Amino acid sequence: MIKNDLLLRALSGQEVSRPPVWTMRQAGRILPEYRKVRQSVSGFKELVQTPELAAEVTIQPVDILGVDAAIMFSDILVVPEAMGFDYEMVEKKGPYFPKTILSPDANLLLQAEVDVEDRLSYVTEAIKLILKGLDNRVPLIGFAGAPWTIFCYLTEGQGSKTFSEPRKWLYQNAAGAHSWMQKITDVTIAYLKMQVAAGVHAVQVFDSWAGVLNQQLYKEFAIPYLKQICDAITEVPVILFSKGAWFSLDDIAQLPCTAVGLDWQMNPEPLRAKFPNLTLQGNLDPTCLYGSEDIIEKHVKSMLESFGTQRYIANLGHGVYPDTDRFKVKHFIDLIKKQ
Amino acid sequence: MIKNDLLLRALSGQEVSRPPVWTMRQAGRILPEYRKVRQSVSGFKELVQTPELAAEVTIQPVDILGVDAAIMFSDILVVPEAMGFDYEMVEKKGPYFPKTILSPDANLLLQAEVDVEDRLSYVTEAIKLILKGLDNRVPLIGFAGAPWTIFCYLTEGQGSKTFSEPRKWLYQNAAGAHSWMQKITDVTIAYLKMQVAAGVHAVQVFDSWAGVLNQQLYKEFAIPYLKQICDAITEVPVILFSKGAWFSLDDIAQLPCTAVGLDWQMNPEPLRAKFPNLTLQGNLDPTCLYGSEDIIEKHVKSMLESFGTQRYIANLGHGVYPDTDRFKVKHFIDLIKKQ
Repeated sequence: MIKNDLLLRALSGQEVSRPPVWTMRQAGRILPEYRKVRQSVSGFKELVQTPELAAEVTIQPVDILGVDAAIMFSDILVVPEAMGFDYEMVEKKGPYFPKTILSPDANLLLQAEVDVEDRLSYVTEAIKLILKGLDNRVPLIGFAGAPWTIFCYLTEGQGSKTFSEPRKWLYQNAAGAHSWMQKITDVTIAYLKMQVAAGVHAVQVFDSWAGVLNQQLYKEFAIPYLKQICDAITEVPVILFSKGAWFSLDDIAQLPCTAVGLDWQMNPEPLRAKFPNLTLQGNLDPTCLYGSEDIIEKHVKSMLESFGTQRYIANLGHGVYPDTDRFKVKHFIDLIKKQ
Repeated sequence: MIKNDLLLRALSGQEVSRPPVWTMRQAGRILPEYRKVRQSVSGFKELVQTPELAAEVTIQPVDILGVDAAIMFSDILVVPEAMGFDYEMVEKKGPYFPKTILSPDANLLLQAEVDVEDRLSYVTEAIKLILKGLDNRVPLIGFAGAPWTIFCYLTEGQGSKTFSEPRKWLYQNAAGAHSWMQKITDVTIAYLKMQVAAGVHAVQVFDSWAGVLNQQLYKEFAIPYLKQICDAITEVPVILFSKGAWFSLDDIAQLPCTAVGLDWQMNPEPLRAKFPNLTLQGNLDPTCLYGSEDIIEKHVKSMLESFGTQRYIANLGHGVYPDTDRFKVKHFIDLIKKQ
């Protein structure tokens, strides 16, 4: 049994004495302990692929910040990598894919069987080590990127402000986009099932680039694949976080998911009114943590007023920015724990 | 008198036989005629600062694409430049400011008087040449960046996915942010008044990075300055385009502006219902123009159904992407003209 099961209780709609709290990217550069581990390896990907180290940095925020959940340290891009699209993580620039869906031999990869358990066995290893290290103190969250976001990287080949390349497909070659989305979905489901089998207690699906679409496009090209994921993952709660998809919140809330994450621009009240049985997660502006303790307190108070304390997971509205003072992050977490 | 005054009629709420149409970034890389002029100079900034050439590329889309309005070729960053923050336009990367608001001597620039008419005399020159070249065929739109967007560049120093630097100020040094926003607003108003005196028939204010805030922050740090601009520019219609600020549409619509621009994610219907006397502009997804003529036709039809044909200016929901086929842009324009 998990000793601190606040997260799982909030997800299942059981009463909680206070909301659970964790922060996206809590295992990362805000902690000097993380940076030390990161410096001991040649690059970000080595850290992702080394189970002992991935486990170590996953557990750090539980020990140091006192969060109510761990989230496994990894990257959403391990799925395209397992599909045969290798990526490099370029310092200060982000990911770069030498091969994309537009490459001449990409169609072979569309057809190829992907043995996720083999290709991503290091994730299973890491989860086992994390669970051992956590020793049932708090639950462990697994995750994957949403198919649309992975499709963005596989067409654009790197980050972008507009992601015009994947959007172009939706108008120019909708059938081709659907084929790739289905392929990515299949691999993602296998990957999440592997995480569940290894013991994660919940999973979160990150649709980081949802915000470049609109309601109509999201309904046609993203919602059906998110639904397949929700339908397939029945053993543990599923949290959907579609950043920027304010236009599709109702469509997302109607999916068979357990919880919906909100970014700092989204207002929980309309969702609460329409979907009282849904757990909501979020959504402090991560730049609020650059403010004074008083400023943080003021905004946390207003956040709690709008979300309420039940069926609620306190979090930021986006991953914590890497140059945030870790004591401010701790202050945020402590404020929630004082509720 | 302007021969084709559809834009001005739509802005003032007079009946029109069909909606006027133009596209953001119509004077730009989509036209080979523009690229030829661009190649004849050393860089983008030389083009902006050479009235004859700026006039030539401004008029090109009127001649070649048949749009119902010209928009002067320039850049929103001429305002910070006039304030003493020089910028470089780095090919394929975007603007870079060697000096920002964080530089040690920036405070001197906060205090300094800015003689806009002297610093930006090349804009006045360009407007005069454009008006001569247009010979009253269509109206000319002037423009400026919104204070928040200029503040984004002056703190971050370059483009960014998160613009965490300007957002940080709002929590860490709200008074400092307000001082700079006021300074930028003062210079922007002087600049827009100069454009009006030179003869532009309408102005558009681009808040390109509005979408990183939320309703509360936009209300505190952006709306008051937009209001000052609307209050100051009374001689010509003012179009406000706050990209991504779906959360503040009602606050924007209540400002004393003439028209509001919508991006491709925003739905005009709620605004139409609440603000029947407001002119709306937008909002075809620019990536739709990568689709076939049939696809474009389908989406234009649905756009016209949701906006209606009166108090409406057809446009894209964002600047046209530079690699768009100009014949598709022409097709979009022709479809509106067939209404």
